[in-house]
Amino acid sequence: MAATEPALIALDWGTSSLRAYLMGPGGAVLETRRLPLGLMQVPGRDFAGVMERAVGDWRLAWPGLRAVAAGMIGSAQGWVEAPYAECPAGTDELARALVPVPGGALLVIPGVARYGAAPDMMRGEETQIVGALVQRPALAAGALFVLPGTHSKWVPVSDGRIRDFRTFMTGEVFATLREHSILGRFATKDAPAADAGRLAEAFARGVTALRDSGSGAAPLLFSARALVLAGQLRPELSLEYLSGLLIGEEIRCGLHGEGAAPVLVGDAALCDRYRRAFALFGIDEVAVLGDTAPAGLWRIAELAELTGRKELQP
Amino acid sequence: MAATEPALIALDWGTSSLRAYLMGPGGAVLETRRLPLGLMQVPGRDFAGVMERAVGDWRLAWPGLRAVAAGMIGSAQGWVEAPYAECPAGTDELARALVPVPGGALLVIPGVARYGAAPDMMRGEETQIVGALVQRPALAAGALFVLPGTHSKWVPVSDGRIRDFRTFMTGEVFATLREHSILGRFATKDAPAADAGRLAEAFARGVTALRDSGSGAAPLLFSARALVLAGQLRPELSLEYLSGLLIGEEIRCGLHGEGAAPVLVGDAALCDRYRRAFALFGIDEVAVLGDTAPAGLWRIAELAELTGRKELQP
Repeated sequence: MAATEPALIALDWGTSSLRAYLMGPGGAVLETRRLPLGLMQVPGRDFAGVMERAVGDWRLAWPGLRAVAAGMIGSAQGWVEAPYAECPAGTDELARALVPVPGGALLVIPGVARYGAAPDMMRGEETQIVGALVQRPALAAGALFVLPGTHSKWVPVSDGRIRDFRTFMTGEVFATLREHSILGRFATKDAPAADAGRLAEAFARGVTALRDSGSGAAPLLFSARALVLAGQLRPELSLEYLSGLLIGEEIRCGLHGEGAAPVLVGDAALCDRYRRAFALFGIDEVAVLGDTAPAGLWRIAELAELTGRKELQP
Repeated sequence: MAATEPALIALDWGTSSLRAYLMGPGGAVLETRRLPLGLMQVPGRDFAGVMERAVGDWRLAWPGLRAVAAGMIGSAQGWVEAPYAECPAGTDELARALVPVPGGALLVIPGVARYGAAPDMMRGEETQIVGALVQRPALAAGALFVLPGTHSKWVPVSDGRIRDFRTFMTGEVFATLREHSILGRFATKDAPAADAGRLAEAFARGVTALRDSGSGAAPLLFSARALVLAGQLRPELSLEYLSGLLIGEEIRCGLHGEGAAPVLVGDAALCDRYRRAFALFGIDEVAVLGDTAPAGLWRIAELAELTGRKELQP
């Protein structure tokens, strides 16, 4: 038994992984579990079985605990489809729109959508934004959150609400080009491993080339190969250079028309990569928050009055 | 026997296919063959064997004929490496730099490279440019050639010489995203086949979205999925829309800093796609040339004095 009495089971259930948090009063994280059981890995769509594997012991030990989840688990391919909240969307709207899975073992937080001529959707990131605002309440007045990843999100917030956002497929485009295009060829060469300093240099070189290009990434992608053929870039550094081009392009387009200083949210190593890229664009004052999902899950559950002990059936 | 006495065997030997032309005086194409025996398909690097399969009968019938080739066959992965001619490069420089394969059965035209801070390379396109200048001599004074493809090339020519160029990986990026990213998912759906008019509309919608974006393709790629999820784009049209985004981005970046009117060279269907995209950028006067490789191969061979009958060994 945990020393502190638990008050909530919170899940961050995405496409490729499931994180489970046992949370105590005030949103303290008592225990964390990470399982390779994202939506795409759930055998036979047995979501209930996977949840049992992930947190069945917690539910047995504390039968009164409620469970809440954010992420792709609420998509059409997930356990239950939770209709999107529409921009502008705040924490209250999200907390009012939870959707129970069949059987009611879990309440799912809706994603956020922007409709109109250029529609866009998120699932999971809205909860990270809520958590970021819990950690830094002053940012509710106005901030530009950047959540790097497979599908990066750029999310301007004002008055505590997500008023708009854009998705950049930077991580997926990079992985796809690395695995399946000619630009990934050098990665399989028997090249000596490069040290961290050289890798960081090659990344910065890509960001700088993009920044100074005058147009965009399209005429520069092939340079990740041509520079190697011309003997001006070591083969084992070419993917770092490519990463710099793609992240540089995301930043160039993302900053377009934005005034607020960016705040990074997410994986520490990836945030650090973006922080270095922002610095090359002359933006040095970038706050970096870590994994804000637990704080967001707690805050939404609290507003939905799920963090007290539920009435047990007699 | 052909009615006209042949004067040259010319090969356009690329990564994925081999085209062979039997040519008569003045560069007339007497016969064309197309074989799926590009560099990547040559068994055991037996280039001589493949050449024998492709044009052995021609060589037997006319033993005095010389053979010339352009394309990736002259790369480090090809039959013989033909060092790049450097920008600015004209027809004369190319004709002076032919490299024989071991045994001398074939003379290979070098590619063209641009070195410096942003190096770039082409192999094969230089010969298409030479052919385009043969077909339209007035363009030698100044033109912007656009050769769409897996790796599109944008090639400004002045005074009859390639003075600079840029590679866009548009075709490869499209194919890679279609086959391996989430954007290709809808393509496998059991959707009704769309008619040509609707496909063209979806393509134009992608080009227009890109043109009006204010920044670039990066924040728009995901819209190829989001528009479908929002019910604003039919799934079977999403790849046409994506093609419009990517070709639009190539044109946006390619036109950056260029003044000359573009001239399209290459596959008719692909050139037509680009022509429609240029029109959406307000550029209606786009000349379209077809396969100019035979004319280029002939011109270079002529300058290198290969189009006469060679002295046969006694």
